[in-house]
Amino acid sequence: MHQPPERINLAIIGCGIRGQEFLENCLKRNDIHLTAIADPDEQMNARSQAILEKYNVKNVRFYNKGKFDYLELYKNETIDAVIIASPWEDHISQAIAAIDYGIIPGLEVCGANNLEECWAIVQKSEEKNIPVMILENVCFRRDMMAVFNMVKQGLFGELLLCHGGFQQDLRSLKFNNGKERRGFGVQLGEQGFSEAKWRTQYSIDRNGDLYPTHGFGPLSNLLDINKGNRLTSIASFATKSRGLHKYIIESPFGGPDCPSASLDFKLGDIITTVFQTIHGETIVLTHDTNNPRANNFGFRVQGTEGLWQDLASGNLEDGLIYLEKYATQKNKWDNSLDLLSQYDHPLWKKYKKETTEVVGYGGMDFLVLHTFIEAVKHKTPFPLDVYDLATWYAITPLSEKSIAEGGQVQIFPDFTKGKWIDRKNNFGIEHI
Amino acid sequence: MHQPPERINLAIIGCGIRGQEFLENCLKRNDIHLTAIADPDEQMNARSQAILEKYNVKNVRFYNKGKFDYLELYKNETIDAVIIASPWEDHISQAIAAIDYGIIPGLEVCGANNLEECWAIVQKSEEKNIPVMILENVCFRRDMMAVFNMVKQGLFGELLLCHGGFQQDLRSLKFNNGKERRGFGVQLGEQGFSEAKWRTQYSIDRNGDLYPTHGFGPLSNLLDINKGNRLTSIASFATKSRGLHKYIIESPFGGPDCPSASLDFKLGDIITTVFQTIHGETIVLTHDTNNPRANNFGFRVQGTEGLWQDLASGNLEDGLIYLEKYATQKNKWDNSLDLLSQYDHPLWKKYKKETTEVVGYGGMDFLVLHTFIEAVKHKTPFPLDVYDLATWYAITPLSEKSIAEGGQVQIFPDFTKGKWIDRKNNFGIEHI
Repeated sequence: MHQPPERINLAIIGCGIRGQEFLENCLKRNDIHLTAIADPDEQMNARSQAILEKYNVKNVRFYNKGKFDYLELYKNETIDAVIIASPWEDHISQAIAAIDYGIIPGLEVCGANNLEECWAIVQKSEEKNIPVMILENVCFRRDMMAVFNMVKQGLFGELLLCHGGFQQDLRSLKFNNGKERRGFGVQLGEQGFSEAKWRTQYSIDRNGDLYPTHGFGPLSNLLDINKGNRLTSIASFATKSRGLHKYIIESPFGGPDCPSASLDFKLGDIITTVFQTIHGETIVLTHDTNNPRANNFGFRVQGTEGLWQDLASGNLEDGLIYLEKYATQKNKWDNSLDLLSQYDHPLWKKYKKETTEVVGYGGMDFLVLHTFIEAVKHKTPFPLDVYDLATWYAITPLSEKSIAEGGQVQIFPDFTKGKWIDRKNNFGIEHI
Repeated sequence: MHQPPERINLAIIGCGIRGQEFLENCLKRNDIHLTAIADPDEQMNARSQAILEKYNVKNVRFYNKGKFDYLELYKNETIDAVIIASPWEDHISQAIAAIDYGIIPGLEVCGANNLEECWAIVQKSEEKNIPVMILENVCFRRDMMAVFNMVKQGLFGELLLCHGGFQQDLRSLKFNNGKERRGFGVQLGEQGFSEAKWRTQYSIDRNGDLYPTHGFGPLSNLLDINKGNRLTSIASFATKSRGLHKYIIESPFGGPDCPSASLDFKLGDIITTVFQTIHGETIVLTHDTNNPRANNFGFRVQGTEGLWQDLASGNLEDGLIYLEKYATQKNKWDNSLDLLSQYDHPLWKKYKKETTEVVGYGGMDFLVLHTFIEAVKHKTPFPLDVYDLATWYAITPLSEKSIAEGGQVQIFPDFTKGKWIDRKNNFGIEHI
């Protein structure tokens, strides 16, 4: 048996706001030796430096000489793994380069630029025998893991339908004042701060589900996608585009005559995507970021013995459930708290303390990083691996193509090339 | 101006359980002279007779000599209008025959047998200048009418997305003991009672959204479909079929060896249908009747200024709402009660007493009948007319075709032949 090292050597590529959350959570652990950070943005590097100082960590090298300096990092640093939290367009090319250096990449979530890069990372990972993890934190959300636990113990019967999505008002993040992350401006691009600098451009250029994995990942785990099951088709439908323009012209910092008011946003305000699986389940995914709304991803998990739906942000009580054998009243919802508490996932119980101590999005951010680091240390398979990454990232270009064709059904590629038949679902198991 | 008659002469074709609810609600009114009932089922006629006796109504003629005796009714009776609440397959042919006799038909809801009959009723109605109403009661549901009111007053901004559906556990109605309507058996067809006699056969023969109008009708009103807006496409996706077989084999009255256990159900357990409109809205419709669930049609109405979703069965408090200008907390749901009460529809206020006194599904059953009868009396246009009927009924054969083609997008026919451009939405207005 492999004797795990006490610490692994790690670097972060792309250390903006999200990368800094990873950074801080890495520094809270005693099994990571953070050697280097690559980011061309000096404003962000100053923030990262402040975090390092807060934790009294020295000798972390910064690679800040432009967009491609991460290649120098790969060349110079002796690292086991790298966390990639850069702007979306660079994730896969940076990961492929890491693999070429024998470094294991963990990729923050997004959608792919195109299908070809999804195939490319699969092929590179297989060729070099270097595993890849997608750092999809919502897979580890407490309610999703309790529901995962219940599904795998048969409480929902045979699954039939899942809904999910990324449904969150991002307007004040897509536009800001160039200084603060949220609000107080209608700037973007070079004048914007953090995601407004680059992420908003996707709403101008692309009409498709731009951010599929938070909604899709947890459902993929439930349905054993790439692990005994597979997607066969995808079709996407976009509404008109209204919210971002309206936000700009109604903003006290914008108005109908400001430069941003002339922008033309390709992204439909709400993207509805429907998937079919080879075992006959349907998945409905919604991308909804351009208009005011309550934060609620809209999960629904339904089987032959009942269903659950979420209504807010992932706490065990933030949902409704009806399981025929457990319902307190026939054909009436129960609040989800009782059942989900009873089936709270073992990892959430085991890491009760740690899940409260992280920065970012709460306990799920501890668990996604923990899962990555432990698997690297123990050389055990990632539960969310390169096939999941390719499949989940591929939703973006496929949904774009379907929308461009009026909702035409697209065949979903099988990135496992048939291996899905024998692969086993290893999500939610601690590989230690 | 047309002087309305004090009473209209009315008949009912198909007077099963649903027809009897109409019958009783007709007898509660003083502006209807019910002259005749046509139904070949003597068990049902005995129940209708009992209702007539309860209200001390005499001289109602029964046409009970087989399935086509309604044609004798049309020939012999002097009636203004007919309510058609027969098994689904007969609705349109019975309505077309009524029009030929100059009788105004009001049709209970269902899906069409095929597209051709949708065109046929439109053409017949136009040719004879006889209006047709679809008696879609959920359009008049209290929460839906409050939301309609709010949408038309601009509280949601510009609409983007609507969800709805027929999501109700019908297993104990699809199968029964041949005597009681719900449960206590796994009989169907000749051995079943009420809908089990004929409705269940649709789950054996057809894979599509069999019952689209309860979910679609209210959304159609919100989106001005056929009245300034129109559907351009439809695509449908079916899950595997599991629930009905499971119900039969697990029933204490059934089991794996009972005759019903060998039935093969074509109907996928959950049908997801996505529509696109010419103004760029998306509609998602769900048909979900074969498995245990909480009663909740799953409405969601979303515009550029916020959204509402229902969580139960149509009371003003059975939902969540987030409208940016009215929300008590940023990005958090409020219960729907306060806003929906404030915008309670004038018809619900005006008929406060009557809406509590009907049988069937509550106040909406008063309002749908009232709307039909008042429009017949006053010769005013129906708010839910033959174009709505054709459009809503057509969902069934179109969704079937899409599913059969793997989810392929279908062009949605324009039954108004271009008149949608100038037609005005007259729903929710009392035409007196």
